[in-house]
Amino acid sequence: MSFRAALAVARAPVDLARLPTDATPGFAGDKAAGQQALAAIGTELADLQERLFAEGRSGTESAPGRSVLLVLQGMDTSGKGGTLRGAVGLIDPQGVRITSFKAPTEEERSHDFLWRIRRGLPGPGIVGVFDRSHYEDVLIHRVRALASPEEIERRYGAINDFEAELAEAGTTVLKVMLHISAAEQRERLLARLDDPTKHWKYNPGDVDERELWPAYREAYEVALERTSTATAPWHVVPADRKWYRNLAVANLLLETLRGIDPQWPLADFDVEGERRRLLDQPEIA
Amino acid sequence: MSFRAALAVARAPVDLARLPTDATPGFAGDKAAGQQALAAIGTELADLQERLFAEGRSGTESAPGRSVLLVLQGMDTSGKGGTLRGAVGLIDPQGVRITSFKAPTEEERSHDFLWRIRRGLPGPGIVGVFDRSHYEDVLIHRVRALASPEEIERRYGAINDFEAELAEAGTTVLKVMLHISAAEQRERLLARLDDPTKHWKYNPGDVDERELWPAYREAYEVALERTSTATAPWHVVPADRKWYRNLAVANLLLETLRGIDPQWPLADFDVEGERRRLLDQPEIA
Repeated sequence: MSFRAALAVARAPVDLARLPTDATPGFAGDKAAGQQALAAIGTELADLQERLFAEGRSGTESAPGRSVLLVLQGMDTSGKGGTLRGAVGLIDPQGVRITSFKAPTEEERSHDFLWRIRRGLPGPGIVGVFDRSHYEDVLIHRVRALASPEEIERRYGAINDFEAELAEAGTTVLKVMLHISAAEQRERLLARLDDPTKHWKYNPGDVDERELWPAYREAYEVALERTSTATAPWHVVPADRKWYRNLAVANLLLETLRGIDPQWPLADFDVEGERRRLLDQPEIA
Repeated sequence: MSFRAALAVARAPVDLARLPTDATPGFAGDKAAGQQALAAIGTELADLQERLFAEGRSGTESAPGRSVLLVLQGMDTSGKGGTLRGAVGLIDPQGVRITSFKAPTEEERSHDFLWRIRRGLPGPGIVGVFDRSHYEDVLIHRVRALASPEEIERRYGAINDFEAELAEAGTTVLKVMLHISAAEQRERLLARLDDPTKHWKYNPGDVDERELWPAYREAYEVALERTSTATAPWHVVPADRKWYRNLAVANLLLETLRGIDPQWPLADFDVEGERRRLLDQPEIA
């Protein structure tokens, strides 16, 4: 059983209230076993990522090399930052490009919503990661009515077209919603208040957003339903348990890279000739 | 004995041929002890880096938060990539921004040599890493005469002014030259030829550059001498031993962060009031 198969949602009505937040789909063990399982995939993950990176370095104009785009979405405290550390952190930082999307700047607002997104796309060979993404433009924008219903409606289609275009260009889009319960969010917010080294992560505005929890849930449900496509399905990762969240996202990355099956580039030079050239060079003092 | 003190070079003539490439300044143990010592600093490094990141997130216009810029230079195969994995990889990827400088593009060449460098500078709270840097403009540019002697001469001063400006703005510049021997480079190039999974890293041009080893050594010596300042000294890290190289760079980062001494931001909200607000919120179904 793959994590992808266990976690992907179909392009059909989604009922988040019925999707568990504390289950461990695709994995039967406990926390200790989960941490072991995470450590155990490190070597294969690193190997596949390096192959992808190598492809990107050796790409040509007509075959520039492929890439991955991990899109991380979730309510406040759902663990996007922890996932970056615990799952994405397993990968060689040279091959990773993380882009965090905050409230758009004035310049960004003056363009179409995908403008700033395109600027964050990974180059050939790179695993790009979006900490929040273009989905904010159909989530908070819907909940807070920051755009008209017609514009929001247009965006679902625009997103599907955009992601199809990415797939066409060789970027595999891996979409992950970190799914926590409202009760778990309250615990995490209270824990931030209890710990002075976590106060910087606390934003009173998060409690205001929390009052809109049902509206956000609905906005997520519609977004998942409208944009879970065959080429770029959504995955709902139960995220109340941090160890499982990291294990699941790392495995989703692993399975995605396996699917891409990147190959070591072949030498485009004469290996034997180069060896002789090196061995024949005079000693350098 | 700190690694900084053990590895910093003074603003005085530098004789790289006399600086060892296989020693372990600042550390008395062997490889196994070095790997243990590297693992042992992980927690403190992560803590200090998170504090720096937190400062950056909580910065104001007048106090935007500080940052670090690690500049990695070294001959081909000296291990810049390995250092990114083995030392920089210890840090939360959210707080790291790596910029690799290749041969400049046409657009980059149409600007002053520092133009593209400024675009790669870390924002507040970030550990920026330059894989090659503005120093290429006084290294390969000197060796290959890509700029006039007068222009190269001008650049040493421009670099010192630039780095002083960075220090003024709160960016601590940590300059590291990975120092390998010519014999070690040959071993590493031969090893790349021997292993088909490393062919993509091999570039026949590297052997041509290798023929210019003495000229590069001299260019490095002049650059170190002219740009090792009190605020931004150069550190020459013996890099024939990969374990020591990682240990040294990780410790240089650690000591730099200790020197910055970033502090957890204080809450700018009413902690007790927020706790009550959360506890008083009606249950969310």
